[in-house]
Amino acid sequence: MSVASVDHDMLTALGRQLRVDAVRAADFAGSGHPTSSLSAADLMAVLLARHLRYDFEAAQNPANDHLIFSKGHASPLLYAMYVAAGAISDEELRWYRSSGSRLQGHPTPALPWVSVATGSLGQGLGVGAGIALAGERLDRRDFRVWVLCGDGELAEGSMWEAFEYAGYERLRNLTAIVDVNRLGQRGPTRYGWDTATYARRISAFGWHVVEIDGHDVDRIDAAYAEAAESARPTAILARTRKGKGVRAVEDAEGAHGKPVPNAESAIAELGGRSEIRVEVAAPEYERPSPPGGERALAIPVYERGESVATRTAFGRALAAMGHARPDLVVLDGEVSDSTRTAYFADEHPDRFFECYIAEQQMTATAVGLSARGWLPFAATFAAFWSRAHDFVRMAAVSGVDLCLVGSHAGVSIGEDGPSQMGLEDLATFRALWRSTVLYPCDANSTAHLTAAMAEHSGIRYLRTTRADTPVLYGPEETFPVGGSKVLRSSEFDDVTIVAAGITVHEALGAAELLADDGVRARVVDLYSLKPVDVATLRRAAADTGRIVTVEDHWPEGGLGDAVLDALTESTVMPTVVKLGVSALPGSATPAEQLRHAGIDAESVAEAARELAGE
Amino acid sequence: MSVASVDHDMLTALGRQLRVDAVRAADFAGSGHPTSSLSAADLMAVLLARHLRYDFEAAQNPANDHLIFSKGHASPLLYAMYVAAGAISDEELRWYRSSGSRLQGHPTPALPWVSVATGSLGQGLGVGAGIALAGERLDRRDFRVWVLCGDGELAEGSMWEAFEYAGYERLRNLTAIVDVNRLGQRGPTRYGWDTATYARRISAFGWHVVEIDGHDVDRIDAAYAEAAESARPTAILARTRKGKGVRAVEDAEGAHGKPVPNAESAIAELGGRSEIRVEVAAPEYERPSPPGGERALAIPVYERGESVATRTAFGRALAAMGHARPDLVVLDGEVSDSTRTAYFADEHPDRFFECYIAEQQMTATAVGLSARGWLPFAATFAAFWSRAHDFVRMAAVSGVDLCLVGSHAGVSIGEDGPSQMGLEDLATFRALWRSTVLYPCDANSTAHLTAAMAEHSGIRYLRTTRADTPVLYGPEETFPVGGSKVLRSSEFDDVTIVAAGITVHEALGAAELLADDGVRARVVDLYSLKPVDVATLRRAAADTGRIVTVEDHWPEGGLGDAVLDALTESTVMPTVVKLGVSALPGSATPAEQLRHAGIDAESVAEAARELAGE
Repeated sequence: MSVASVDHDMLTALGRQLRVDAVRAADFAGSGHPTSSLSAADLMAVLLARHLRYDFEAAQNPANDHLIFSKGHASPLLYAMYVAAGAISDEELRWYRSSGSRLQGHPTPALPWVSVATGSLGQGLGVGAGIALAGERLDRRDFRVWVLCGDGELAEGSMWEAFEYAGYERLRNLTAIVDVNRLGQRGPTRYGWDTATYARRISAFGWHVVEIDGHDVDRIDAAYAEAAESARPTAILARTRKGKGVRAVEDAEGAHGKPVPNAESAIAELGGRSEIRVEVAAPEYERPSPPGGERALAIPVYERGESVATRTAFGRALAAMGHARPDLVVLDGEVSDSTRTAYFADEHPDRFFECYIAEQQMTATAVGLSARGWLPFAATFAAFWSRAHDFVRMAAVSGVDLCLVGSHAGVSIGEDGPSQMGLEDLATFRALWRSTVLYPCDANSTAHLTAAMAEHSGIRYLRTTRADTPVLYGPEETFPVGGSKVLRSSEFDDVTIVAAGITVHEALGAAELLADDGVRARVVDLYSLKPVDVATLRRAAADTGRIVTVEDHWPEGGLGDAVLDALTESTVMPTVVKLGVSALPGSATPAEQLRHAGIDAESVAEAARELAGE
Repeated sequence: MSVASVDHDMLTALGRQLRVDAVRAADFAGSGHPTSSLSAADLMAVLLARHLRYDFEAAQNPANDHLIFSKGHASPLLYAMYVAAGAISDEELRWYRSSGSRLQGHPTPALPWVSVATGSLGQGLGVGAGIALAGERLDRRDFRVWVLCGDGELAEGSMWEAFEYAGYERLRNLTAIVDVNRLGQRGPTRYGWDTATYARRISAFGWHVVEIDGHDVDRIDAAYAEAAESARPTAILARTRKGKGVRAVEDAEGAHGKPVPNAESAIAELGGRSEIRVEVAAPEYERPSPPGGERALAIPVYERGESVATRTAFGRALAAMGHARPDLVVLDGEVSDSTRTAYFADEHPDRFFECYIAEQQMTATAVGLSARGWLPFAATFAAFWSRAHDFVRMAAVSGVDLCLVGSHAGVSIGEDGPSQMGLEDLATFRALWRSTVLYPCDANSTAHLTAAMAEHSGIRYLRTTRADTPVLYGPEETFPVGGSKVLRSSEFDDVTIVAAGITVHEALGAAELLADDGVRARVVDLYSLKPVDVATLRRAAADTGRIVTVEDHWPEGGLGDAVLDALTESTVMPTVVKLGVSALPGSATPAEQLRHAGIDAESVAEAARELAGE
């Protein structure tokens, strides 16, 4: 049959077909997770045939539901669904996991129907919550978000951040379908089929919970209907059997993540191939409607001589951008008074989302909003971005647009001590696919770069400083991403000092000290660490032959390494001295911290003097 | 009074004194969190005077309880407790947050009574669970672990990983004291004083829960007694008032993280200074008793010509080390069949801890075990260490000994795709204080380096490879940390190829191809990325003037940057070409992945040929 009548038998048959195609996909590939697909096949059959509203011909239709496989390893099942929906051909399924195929081992947005990449467990539900939030609070559309979760991933704390977030925000358009197949990668989960334990927990987080047999298509159907009616997010806890339908692997340990041993006999056991095509209910086509009302950007500027923290300049710029860009949304991890996103919250409360102290969910929410076409800025202390590193890594894989801001960078925060000091953030944000890393030193460059971030793509990171710093640039200056500023130079410079953020001011102080000794220092403000201004750095290398880099960061992976990288393949290689934080700081004043770390003006001058004297 | 009689009035007076001293500490410093201290002062007064068993003269006494301030910003309260216990002088309190003082803004093990650094919220309870686990399963001692938590940090998913872990493991020696003061940094928490909401959740995770008025010393006392009797871990949910006792800041927004406005009048309002000294109940002194039974290490070795995955060599070495070192414990994030810690689990089930898919809690447990003197190895996929980055960062601040292992590194895993590929781990692990980063290419070097890790200190990271690779070294070779191996060289090398792990084999293949073209390539196996073998790299630079680095990692922060760093301040700077993964991989076979990324033998040869031809 080409378009099936939707009844019990058809749903059962569709479940079988999804199983067969999942087994076949993994068999074609010689790898993959068929057993994790088999457990969820009935759940997905009923969803596809009866509840999902999706126009596979128009993935950009903003009225489409979202289906997220948080258990991304069950990709054979997802792709089998695409076959059943007629979105891809059976022929394409044969290329599963092959080089160049869109049907990757774990789903990515290489496929138009995949909103976000999954495969790092514990992330799909949080991102789904972000998408659901967009539906409820911003898009105001009635699409639903369906997230297929594994039981194993319920051990991830990020899942509970997501349950908390969605429960508190009462995201009734969100349904978590938990495939409780009892078995993780290497053996049983903690609670096996005891869905009551999960139910107690999830309902304590404000969710509506339904426990069902995940192979009973009627119960599944009823549960989805119940979810649609609930005023709260719904979790469907479905008891299933991993490898369901294939005796050799059903409910068996040691059968995770590999093709079933004999695909041919497994397919026969499942009832053989079929070609059921499901006409998935497509919502009325609607054009994406970006929020209107763009206005010219009037970004706050500062006069030379003022003293303004870059975090403050960021916050003020962001608030101004909120007036110019109606698609801008802002999230914060309960430190908006410190990061200064509070300025945006004050002026645009409907587009500000307080995420409390849950950096993973904050990132997931931002990813979800981005997947819906909103442009999120999310901020916390630079140090606490380390909490969300895996989420940011996966956001990069998803290719979404995120603007992330880390305040209170480096030892220069002073007394609070090492737990609060971002000293590794430049390294982690540089080592992401297609990332942009910016670190301005004054209020005007911060304002410009905050605006520039919004126009860029991929993961962009802005590092800000706690303390007030002097305004160095006039309001008319421009700061292209990938550029730098030569703040001081002469025809016969002896040495170049490359700095960014707080250390630019120390570098300028060092240049003064050096001038007193007759040493001419060029000073480069390397506000863009990735991409980096190769031309200016190579010119400095050629002109001065000696470079001192200075950064408020561990010596690894930050500004110094970015400079060295820019100088590879240079015709003239300079001698480079890297200054950074190499000992564990304690409490001290900001000035003491810079001195102890050897990155204050005197230390920089001393290093430059020694180098120039060689 | 010097030693107080412990009754209601004394407890109340002690609470007042702790408040006064917390206010004074922050006032001396001109910064800090007195209001977050005031809310918990009664809780801590009763604990110190009536329930804590701690010998402040012998912090190394293994019978001591552990007190962890998960809300590390309440350090003024902790230090006020130390004054009351006679552990530090009132004079020392005056140096709070000053340069060189042990009394840092957030507690660190610079103080002998602080087991682990806190200050990144959501970590203390998990680490406490690890310490409690040591007490129950390894040390078999009846000390208790008391963790003071904030209500704000209950939003962190890591807290729920900790509740889950301790609940499942029935760690009855663990008590979470939650200071529900209703106010976060920038305003109210989600649930205010609604402790019933928290109670429902925490009890659903298998804990005994008590809700009390956190300023009622009798109820507090009874709650601690109840915790001691419980067969499960206990959470005491204490409704308190932030800034309690000082009208200007009590239960007030905008008073977080700063000294109270008028310390003198606040102290008067609190009843003025007092000098109560509490004789904290000290447990009988016991010598630390490291588990006996060391045996000579017989590490599995391999013959040249065999083909063995480095992850397998790691797992086998670890299992062997388990026989030699009775203090060795191993943790895994539900992937022990992949990381190969399963070999250890099979042979030493009593020292293997399955942490399920919860990398943050796995790290926290490891930190707790380390704080008790055990040597933990913890393993997961390299990619998933990004989930625990903040925990690893704080472990470095704590200065604990951790051996961490990341398997399935790089694109060479093949078909699973980018979500499973560790491509940033070298960057993140290099940018940690006092870390060691190792990346062996064959079974014998892996076995030796696994053993060497155990003898090192601080955070050590070992990166392993999924695929089988040829054994290059004989069993007799040694692999000092900080060393490297020159695998191929001649007197007149044209170019040096520096590689590690999987790319060593590609580099050797490249050298063969180059030899066919008459280009002599030196090949360096840089198995130690931090510390790095500066001498060998500088010699290669001087000898060949041209270096190609090749790594299965993003171009930033990994091997290439480690090489460049080693070459700074060289007398002769070579031209360096860095090869790494610069495009987002999809699915493909391992060989295809290496080729697409431009890090296979042909690509390396081409880069080297071009460089040598310049």
